[in-house]
Amino acid sequence: MDQHNFLYLRRVYIDTLQEPVVYMRQDCHVCRSEGFNAMSRVRVSTGNKSIIATVNKVTDGWLSHQQAGLSEAAWRLLGASEGEVAYFSHTKPVESMSFVRGKLYGTSLTDETAQAIISDISAGLYSDVQLAAFVTACSGSRLDRDEVAALTQAMVQVGERLEWDDDRIMDKHCVGGLPGNRTTPIVVAIVAASGLKMPKTSSRAITSPAGTADTMETMAPVNLSLERMKDVVKEQGACIAWGGSVSLSPADDVLIRVERALDLDSEGQLVASVLSKKVAAGSTHVLIDIPIGPTAKVRSEAYAQRLADQLKYTGEKLGICVETCFSDGSQPVGRGVGPALEARDVLAVLRNQTDAPMDLKDRALTLAGRLLEMGGKAAPGSGREQARAYIENGEALARFMAICEAQGGFREPILGGHTKVVKAVRSGLLTFMNNRFMAKLAKLLGAPTDSGAGLDMHVRLGEKISIGQPLYTLYAESHGELAYALDFLKEHREEFRIEEEIL
Amino acid sequence: MDQHNFLYLRRVYIDTLQEPVVYMRQDCHVCRSEGFNAMSRVRVSTGNKSIIATVNKVTDGWLSHQQAGLSEAAWRLLGASEGEVAYFSHTKPVESMSFVRGKLYGTSLTDETAQAIISDISAGLYSDVQLAAFVTACSGSRLDRDEVAALTQAMVQVGERLEWDDDRIMDKHCVGGLPGNRTTPIVVAIVAASGLKMPKTSSRAITSPAGTADTMETMAPVNLSLERMKDVVKEQGACIAWGGSVSLSPADDVLIRVERALDLDSEGQLVASVLSKKVAAGSTHVLIDIPIGPTAKVRSEAYAQRLADQLKYTGEKLGICVETCFSDGSQPVGRGVGPALEARDVLAVLRNQTDAPMDLKDRALTLAGRLLEMGGKAAPGSGREQARAYIENGEALARFMAICEAQGGFREPILGGHTKVVKAVRSGLLTFMNNRFMAKLAKLLGAPTDSGAGLDMHVRLGEKISIGQPLYTLYAESHGELAYALDFLKEHREEFRIEEEIL
Repeated sequence: MDQHNFLYLRRVYIDTLQEPVVYMRQDCHVCRSEGFNAMSRVRVSTGNKSIIATVNKVTDGWLSHQQAGLSEAAWRLLGASEGEVAYFSHTKPVESMSFVRGKLYGTSLTDETAQAIISDISAGLYSDVQLAAFVTACSGSRLDRDEVAALTQAMVQVGERLEWDDDRIMDKHCVGGLPGNRTTPIVVAIVAASGLKMPKTSSRAITSPAGTADTMETMAPVNLSLERMKDVVKEQGACIAWGGSVSLSPADDVLIRVERALDLDSEGQLVASVLSKKVAAGSTHVLIDIPIGPTAKVRSEAYAQRLADQLKYTGEKLGICVETCFSDGSQPVGRGVGPALEARDVLAVLRNQTDAPMDLKDRALTLAGRLLEMGGKAAPGSGREQARAYIENGEALARFMAICEAQGGFREPILGGHTKVVKAVRSGLLTFMNNRFMAKLAKLLGAPTDSGAGLDMHVRLGEKISIGQPLYTLYAESHGELAYALDFLKEHREEFRIEEEIL
Repeated sequence: MDQHNFLYLRRVYIDTLQEPVVYMRQDCHVCRSEGFNAMSRVRVSTGNKSIIATVNKVTDGWLSHQQAGLSEAAWRLLGASEGEVAYFSHTKPVESMSFVRGKLYGTSLTDETAQAIISDISAGLYSDVQLAAFVTACSGSRLDRDEVAALTQAMVQVGERLEWDDDRIMDKHCVGGLPGNRTTPIVVAIVAASGLKMPKTSSRAITSPAGTADTMETMAPVNLSLERMKDVVKEQGACIAWGGSVSLSPADDVLIRVERALDLDSEGQLVASVLSKKVAAGSTHVLIDIPIGPTAKVRSEAYAQRLADQLKYTGEKLGICVETCFSDGSQPVGRGVGPALEARDVLAVLRNQTDAPMDLKDRALTLAGRLLEMGGKAAPGSGREQARAYIENGEALARFMAICEAQGGFREPILGGHTKVVKAVRSGLLTFMNNRFMAKLAKLLGAPTDSGAGLDMHVRLGEKISIGQPLYTLYAESHGELAYALDFLKEHREEFRIEEEIL
């Protein structure tokens, strides 16, 4: 390292999301002597820490020749302080990108190459463009089952790993694609009430309008440290935390950000993403819900079976018990789509309200029942009825509230203040509803970033509709997003089909 | 468009390369009412123009709530002026990304979908991450020959297109991978001297240390407007201009930038890139040089043949005559590697100097000879000798100088001021030289951005070397880059192999 190549750090308060950016005068001595160009990837080192950042060159006077500006992500990763000295040097090309290129040209990933790639990704060495290439190289069905297992193992190894005293640590996951399918908080409450351990880590939305972590966050804090999470589980037998905040599979969160930007899901990365977090979280018994429907993420029984096989195979290779469960994926579950709206439905079920959405309750009972059986708390075939009892006697609700309190305090979810009711323009039978369209609409309304945004469904498939009857209500936190969603809606009326009844 | 959503534009002098970025206060009324987030893609419109840009949020006071900062690329694309009013709105999701996803899931590109993708790319609708996904989806051998033809046709259609009066417009191209293989300026000079038309558009380097445009730029301006280029050709029968500056295949330059960041070449995009520019430039007779060697871009005769077939097939579909020519790709051509160093070699050949690199001259004569034959200026088999005559009688040099003058004036290329001679550490036969390594070394030295950077080779394969004999000289424009290249060199001595002579 050339000791002359230093500049004084300045926080410039620019939010570039996760990509670390360094702003440097193009005519400063460091840029000149090192030959940095715009978009060069450079190493920035202070006394204690070192990161890789992308150069944005500044060509005018708002930054001095002695300063380097850091974006918010760079500032945070480096743990920098105002005016601190930092040294700048070239980065070597990321060696593991050659394995990504190899994969593109037909060479399978091995345990070693997967490890090298994932380790470089979690160290922040990949630029967004390189991440996009890796995600794309693994997309569709491009990974075979041994590559998937290698990727999963690699993702576990770069993160923290939890250990628990119990020999049965229960977990569940739903392979998304079904708006409003927010069974997790209900299932966790029931399973924990039965005395089983269920330290649940969930992700934020990938391409959907809400992930479990997004929904849970409208009711209680989910950014728990590892220590905090352990305390909650010790006290209540369960938690519902955001997986990324405990670094269980840090590479996964980086990949998910890029998958979201591309609106791209990959079979192999789906399996690796799900199971790496389960293994890292110390889970031993995992139930995976796979909804199947023409507009769900999984559209055919055949694909569901392929996924189930991959999940079980990878589970075996990594030493955990994985079971799967296929469910109906033809329409949204519950009424709400979007973080706060889904939380409202979850609370209605837990509170045993008579107006709670029955389909959501039904799914939650099925899953909780299977877990009670897998965990040895219910005889085969009796799990579901036992799960229902925990709802009816209030024990599930009490446990859920106790978990929220332990995580930092319960709050009622707040719905967006800008609303618009969409009404039927004709009478007839509701024969089709496009899940992807409903999800897109909720996202245009601002979900999941705006937690109060989304849709509230008032009708179900097969229902007889009268002209002027409310179909669903749009919720947004800003006028602009509501207006934009309404524009979009005008062009896509056919995604919600009402047909004349044939008598 | 909501007429309240305006801000005053401010140029913030940040160079993000080609990606347009808009800097906005996260608490400004536009961000709040529209619900923009960091990395949102938004539409920015002034009275006359409209672009798509990526949002970077500013969380502190250097930008006011009434202002939106624009990166250099955004400023240029929008043709903005200081304090001008601009309106902001959401962009609709890029519809053609669904065809990119479709391709990843196994659906071939069609004429229509290729057209939709390329047209959105050239309109600047794709983010860098989306571009990376498209480039990756097409990488390796993922495109069949009809997809390649569709992509080529689409790339032609989004750009400008030149028309010439002559019915024979000559062109040549080299499928890179061979450092220093800079025959183009020599070939153009000879072909033009023969009276044939050769309006040459060249690209900048993709993954190599110098493209023809980079090299030519060290001798004369290459950023010619379409009008200027036509004038030069009218006057001199030929030009050597940067293709991108005349918008012949604007999508290609966007894709090349991402391919370069990924160090990724794609067979299909290579063909589409080459031929779209040829067709758009109005070429009718195109000769393509394909060097083959163990460390060249094309490593086997089989791959060369596949490329040649694809080039010919696409040429036919687009209505032009394409011929190919295989050449030796085992070591760098000429002596220099890097823009100015290669220009020096080109001038030595044109000036008929006795110390001119013979291999470069030989290749240039072969290609020029083939073109003279294709253009009907030489009988089959006699083209090469006729080409040689144009060098020896000085007509090629005179024509080259006239072309340079017409393009804006000739200048002698300037080599980098920081040099270091690398000497042999043992005696023996030079048995191996890794082209990719030599190219990487030249890039680490700063080429092609620093035009004076690169390598000057003093030895050839098969030569007998004495200990202490100079092997090559490193050229850099900054001390930092020279030092970095030397570090890299220490770790990779085996890429340049000298073995004991077995007697």
